[in-house]
Formats: sequence, structure tokens, C-alpha cells
Amino acid sequence: MALSKSPYKGTRDFFPEQMRLRNYIFSKMAEVSELFAYEPYDGPMLEELDLYRAKSGEELINDQVYNFIDRGDREVAIRPEMTPTVARMVAQIHREVAKPLRWYAIPNLMRYEKPQKGRLREFWQYNADIFGAPEGLGDVEIIQLAVEIMKSFGANNEHFEILINSRKLVDYVFTGPIHLEHEMTKKLYKLIDKKNKMPADKFSAEVSEITNDPIKTIIFEKYVALSSMKDIEIFFEETLEGTHGEEIFNKNVKPLMTLFSQLEALGLKDYIKFDPSIVRGLDYYTDVVFEIFDKHPENRRAIAGGGAYANLLAIFGEQPLGGIGFGMGEVPLTEFLKTHALLPDTSKQNIDLLIAYSDNESESTAMELAQTLRNHKIKVELYFGEAKTKKIFSYTDKKQPHFALILTKEEISSTEVVLRNLKTKELHKVKLIDVDKMIEMIKGSR
Amino acid sequence: MALSKSPYKGTRDFFPEQMRLRNYIFSKMAEVSELFAYEPYDGPMLEELDLYRAKSGEELINDQVYNFIDRGDREVAIRPEMTPTVARMVAQIHREVAKPLRWYAIPNLMRYEKPQKGRLREFWQYNADIFGAPEGLGDVEIIQLAVEIMKSFGANNEHFEILINSRKLVDYVFTGPIHLEHEMTKKLYKLIDKKNKMPADKFSAEVSEITNDPIKTIIFEKYVALSSMKDIEIFFEETLEGTHGEEIFNKNVKPLMTLFSQLEALGLKDYIKFDPSIVRGLDYYTDVVFEIFDKHPENRRAIAGGGAYANLLAIFGEQPLGGIGFGMGEVPLTEFLKTHALLPDTSKQNIDLLIAYSDNESESTAMELAQTLRNHKIKVELYFGEAKTKKIFSYTDKKQPHFALILTKEEISSTEVVLRNLKTKELHKVKLIDVDKMIEMIKGSR
Repeated sequence: MALSKSPYKGTRDFFPEQMRLRNYIFSKMAEVSELFAYEPYDGPMLEELDLYRAKSGEELINDQVYNFIDRGDREVAIRPEMTPTVARMVAQIHREVAKPLRWYAIPNLMRYEKPQKGRLREFWQYNADIFGAPEGLGDVEIIQLAVEIMKSFGANNEHFEILINSRKLVDYVFTGPIHLEHEMTKKLYKLIDKKNKMPADKFSAEVSEITNDPIKTIIFEKYVALSSMKDIEIFFEETLEGTHGEEIFNKNVKPLMTLFSQLEALGLKDYIKFDPSIVRGLDYYTDVVFEIFDKHPENRRAIAGGGAYANLLAIFGEQPLGGIGFGMGEVPLTEFLKTHALLPDTSKQNIDLLIAYSDNESESTAMELAQTLRNHKIKVELYFGEAKTKKIFSYTDKKQPHFALILTKEEISSTEVVLRNLKTKELHKVKLIDVDKMIEMIKGSR
Repeated sequence: MALSKSPYKGTRDFFPEQMRLRNYIFSKMAEVSELFAYEPYDGPMLEELDLYRAKSGEELINDQVYNFIDRGDREVAIRPEMTPTVARMVAQIHREVAKPLRWYAIPNLMRYEKPQKGRLREFWQYNADIFGAPEGLGDVEIIQLAVEIMKSFGANNEHFEILINSRKLVDYVFTGPIHLEHEMTKKLYKLIDKKNKMPADKFSAEVSEITNDPIKTIIFEKYVALSSMKDIEIFFEETLEGTHGEEIFNKNVKPLMTLFSQLEALGLKDYIKFDPSIVRGLDYYTDVVFEIFDKHPENRRAIAGGGAYANLLAIFGEQPLGGIGFGMGEVPLTEFLKTHALLPDTSKQNIDLLIAYSDNESESTAMELAQTLRNHKIKVELYFGEAKTKKIFSYTDKKQPHFALILTKEEISSTEVVLRNLKTKELHKVKLIDVDKMIEMIKGSR
């Protein structure tokens, strides 16, 4: 029986059109990262499973990770996320290098998921992290970086928004005014995470059930209704009690307000929004958390998400080193770009010149000329075999090179050839040996 | 117990210095491929195991592939090579597209190997293939492409050579003049593959044992002593018998001679060499085979290898479509570049400008200026926190940005700042609002 031609479920074949799109997306991500002085890194596609057991959320380990035993009896996993790897790498070198560390990567990751729009089993994810920045400054820069990457694709605040919250703030609401036990806190975290996916009354009912206390329920519902820095100030004025009120406020709430005013000073007011329901499922976040959301009503989904972590290195027996980072998947990003008609056309190859020959005697001249021009960074496709006029024009219609040269032995012996600009339809007579002239014409019309 | 900070055995962490090197290598490979009008593609890192069972060699399947059962009971494997994937992809679309197809990819692959110099478990491999080219022409181009990629790293014929053979020629020697049965042929193929790794007398002894015939042994030893096209011609004149001699010669030997003369016409005479011991282990090659070898006596190993295949699509129930391709691993390539001192220095980040501020009042001005310059494609690193002169110069010593600006509130209120060229040690007074001037100076000295 013939083998299947399809890729493994939830993965993709990148034919040249799709691969050029992927290259376009990755090159923008890399370019903006380099403008912010972030350095590239990468790790292995396989890690020991214990790394994820120690750091990743339960869902990832129990349901999504691709793990197996290797031929040497090691428990390994295909990386489902990059943060544990970057933490492992930073743990190796953080004591010897100048800080902050600004790093980015675009690894391929795998998760066993039910494939659907915007979600696949194999995907690439841009990751940026800054480690060891002074309090608050890394947060500003990493959010700014996220905005600039989105802008580099032509997107603006009509297309996306950044929803921001702080785990410190949430933790304080849960353990301060609401006085919840740890187990309840965990349940409420999970519930908030799903808030936007359930009807309001169902949400309320589940809150009541968890808190089992009408006053706590009211405070919690007040919290989830907050929508601005001003709201937060009023909320805490109303709920903060006791003598430590200001201290607690300064520690848990003020930094978020400072972040907002710094981002506003950088002109990002219309991109950012406080959202009490952003908490991020993963366990390692300890402070600011954020998600980039598509604003289009029909594609309301997260394109990127991240947050600050105080203690990623502890599992390696290293001293704490704080950081903040985010991941942006190319699958939801591509959906976003498609939704807003921001995808470039990558269907055509970018060929400077097609060289063909009408008779076999001209073949070696064609091959040599092609190589000479390539040495000058001209992208040359050689058309193989004796070229029939009709066939060659149907071919150039398909491939759309910018220029074409069809060598004949008559031309070669007369030493003058015709360079056709297929975009302007102009014909230029050029001496065969005048390679500089050809290069100038071709590069000049790029 | 603390987790290990090391990567999984046989894999690597790419810290920024190594990642910049990898990026350099990949960008050269991509650039040269695009100059030859090859198009980028990629496939999934996981494929169904059956794909490799059908196409890859026994060693790969039995000892080297990373395979496991996924959560949905499918037998899958991490790709150990790219050819089966590209064949699967071409099988999907070859009937609808203009030929030839010229494709390249740089996937990460995994093989369970004993890690050693030039060989690791996870590695990246450049792959280029041309499908559906007229007889012989794809061979010329693909070998030319291989040479040009090597040259793009500064290598020349003093550093490497391309050893070429033809499976048709070898098959003919085995089944024609030596008249061997299929089983013996297979054994001799395996033996030739190991020829350069064993003493001459051991080799001879094993040949005698396999053929069990002194005349056949002599012919075979004559074959493995061939070292040029001229040798081949004489060898076949001596051994070809019967009326079909010329026909057989034209079919099995002549194309290789044509390939050599075409490559010589392209100026590649000093790069290519006939080598009867190059046969390539993999089953799917059917015609020209070649390997790029390091010429350095202390690093005598293959950097790349490939060949022509007539029938890769058969396993998908598709009509035959011939092609030729090769793979070049970044691990042996890096060893080669290191051996010949061709590696660029990637230890330093390429930063245009470091912006620092000596007092917190200048922070927001620094942040805004940094962003304005980034919008003009200047790579700007922002130095966080109040900068002490001594500390900042020790930092710039480490990071080596091209320029530095240390903003003070006095400067900002006087509206004039000092732009330091750290390479020339020149100081330039510039108006803070004259961003164009700064851009011009920075870009002008790149």
C-alpha cells in the first residue's frame, strides 16, 4: 500500500510560499529584537522530562508533552515551551556575565493538542526574556519590544491591545481583603483564567461556590470589574485595612501603576489596558503578567503572553535572578495577520534574472554567465535545455523573474545579447562581455 | 536535589556567541541557495515511522532513529534525515507545478549516535534538491551549488575537494565484468564504503573472500584503483566484452564523463575528483553520488554528501520523478571551518549605540530617544539605572557598542549631548533634537 503523503497530524509542510511567509515573520522578529540589543540563543529540541516536571504547569505535563524513553533509558521530552530551557542555560552562566541578559529565540515546539484554528501540535514560538534588570525597567522594555514587533508587521492599536495585570496584585486581593486559603486561591485563579469563556451568571455562581461567603464574593466581583489604574486606586482605598495599608499598596500595587505611566510616556497609552482576568496559568510568574489580544471580534484570541518571574533558577540550586519574558506563537500571529489583511504576498519567488538558451551550443556560455552574475549577488535561474520561445514565455509568466536573457548562438557570435525587463517590457541590447552593465541595470531596477 | 544544568547528551545549548555563528552559517547557505533560485521549504520535526521504514537505511531505523508511540497510538519518529520528508512533499504537488523544482531547507535532525568530534545527536543539516531537471543538468548545478556554498565561507580547493562517483558505473562493474550475484554486490558495496578506514591488505583479503574468484578479485581491485576519467576509459576498454559494449558504456559511464567535462568548463577542475570508493550507504541513490571532503590531513572527513535518485516517489504511489540533492551538516562544517581558521569572530554583539543616563530625571528622555533611533534601524541598548562613569566604561569595554551617549539632566536642559565614537574615541556634540544627524553619523561609520 502506498504511504500517506500528508504530514503527521497537527503539523505542517511548509511549501516555498508558506516558508517565505515564515521567513518574513521570523526576520521581522529577529530584526526588532536586534534593534533592542537582544541576543539570539537556542537550546536542544529534546530535554530531560524532569526539567518540565519541575517548572511547567500540570496540564502540559499530564496531557500535552511528547515524552518517551530514549535508547539509553533516559526519560526525555520534545520541548513544549522554551522557558525551562532558557532558565537552564542562564543558570549555567549568570554568575560570569554582565547583566541584564537580553535574549531571544524562535524554537519549534510540540504539544499534543486537538488541532484547531490558531492551535497546532508543532509550532514555532518567538521568545524574548530579560534577566537581571533593575526593578520595573525590564517590564517596560519587554512590553515595548512586544509592541514594536507587532508594529513591524504593520499592526497598530486598532488591531491589537496588550492586557496587563500583576500576580502580586491578584495574590494580595486573594490573601488580603478576601482572606482566602491557598486551595481556594488556586481555584479562583483557574476560574479567572476561564472568565472570558463563560457566561457572566455561571461565573458568579462558581465564585460564590468557591468563596462560600457573600462579602468575599462581592469583593471578588468588584475586583474582576476593575478596568483602569484609577479603578484600582479606589478599590484599594476601599478595601485596604489596618496600619500596613500604604506599605502593602506600595509593594503590590504601585509598581503596576508606575509601569502604566512609563508605557504611557513612551506613547503606548492606546496599546495597553489593565485586565483583572489576565493571570496566566503557568506557575512560575510572580509579578507583571500580560497578553497581546487580537481586537477583531471574530478572532478574539491571545497572540502572545508572558510575565515576570522571580525565581526560575532555584530548581538548579542557583541564587534567585529575576526576569520577565514573553512568547509569541507564529500560528496565532499568522491568523491575526490574515484577519487584518496584513500578510504579504509570498506566492512568487524573487528572481532577478532567468537565463535560457535556444540551442545546445549556447549552453556552456549560459552556465558561465549565470555563475558570473551570481558572484555579483544577482539571483539567476538557469532554464535547462533548448528553450522554445512559446514555452519560455509561459514559464516566465509562472515564475515572474524580473529580467530574462535568451541566448542564441547568433547573438553569442555577434557578442551582443538582448536583456528583457519583463516588468516594463523594455528590451536592452548589451554586450555579452559587459557584465558590469547587466549588473547595474538589474540592481538598478530592484 | 537540584536539576542538571547540562543539555541532554549529544545536544547543544547555543549561547549568543554560538547562535550568531549558526546564524552566520545558515545565512550564507540561504544566500547562495537564493542566488541559484532555490526556494526554501520545511517539514515537521515528527513524521510517521513508516516513512523512514520505507526509505532510510537499516542502520538508521535499527540503531539511530528516535521513535516512540504518541498519545494517540501512532508510531512516530523525530526526523533523522530530510530526504523522506521532501519526497513526501514533492509527491503531493509535483503534478501541478513547473519543473524543475529547486528546493533547500536547514532542518534540525536527531540521531541516536555516540557523540564524538564532528558528530552529535542533534544537528542541523542544509539540504538542497533539484527534481525533474533534464538528464545530467541537475547534477552539474547541484555540485556547482555545493562548491559555491563552501566558497561563501572563504574556502577553496586547498581546503576541500568533491569526490564523485556513479552508482550506475559501480553497478555495471559488479554485474558486468565481475558478474556478481546480488548478495555479493551488497557485500562489496558495504566493503567499499569502509575502504578508507581499513588497511589495504585487510581490504584485499575481504574482497577475495567475498568474490571467491581470483580473476574477479583482480578486476575489482583494478576498479578501486581508478582515479581519473582517463583511467575509467581504459578500464572499460579492457573489460567490456561482446557487441553491446558501446551501448553499455554510453549508458553507464559516459554521463559521468560528461559531468566532469561540464564542471571543468565551469572552472571547477581543481575541486572535483573521481573516487571509486564513494558509493553512499543509503539505498535510494541510483546514479551520480558525491561527498565533499576536508583536505586537511588531521580532519579527513566528509562535510557533505549526496546523489541522484530516480524513484523517490514510488512509495507514495506516484510516477517516477528523478532528482539529485545533497545534505551538509553544520557540525562537520563547523569543524572544517575551525580547522582552516575560517570561522568569523562572533563573540561580540553588534550594537550601534549604548544610551545611558546619569540621573533618574533623564530616564524617560533616554527611553524615548532609544525608541526614536530604533525606528530608524539603529541598534540601541538602553543601560538601565543611574550610570556611574566608571561602571559604564567597564560595561562598554565588555559589550563594545560602536557609540555611546550618557545623558545628564544638564545636557538635556542645554539641549546638546555628546555622542562618543568608542572605536575612534572621537566626541561629537549633537543637538538632542537633531536625530537625523545622529543617525547619519552612526550609519555613516558602520
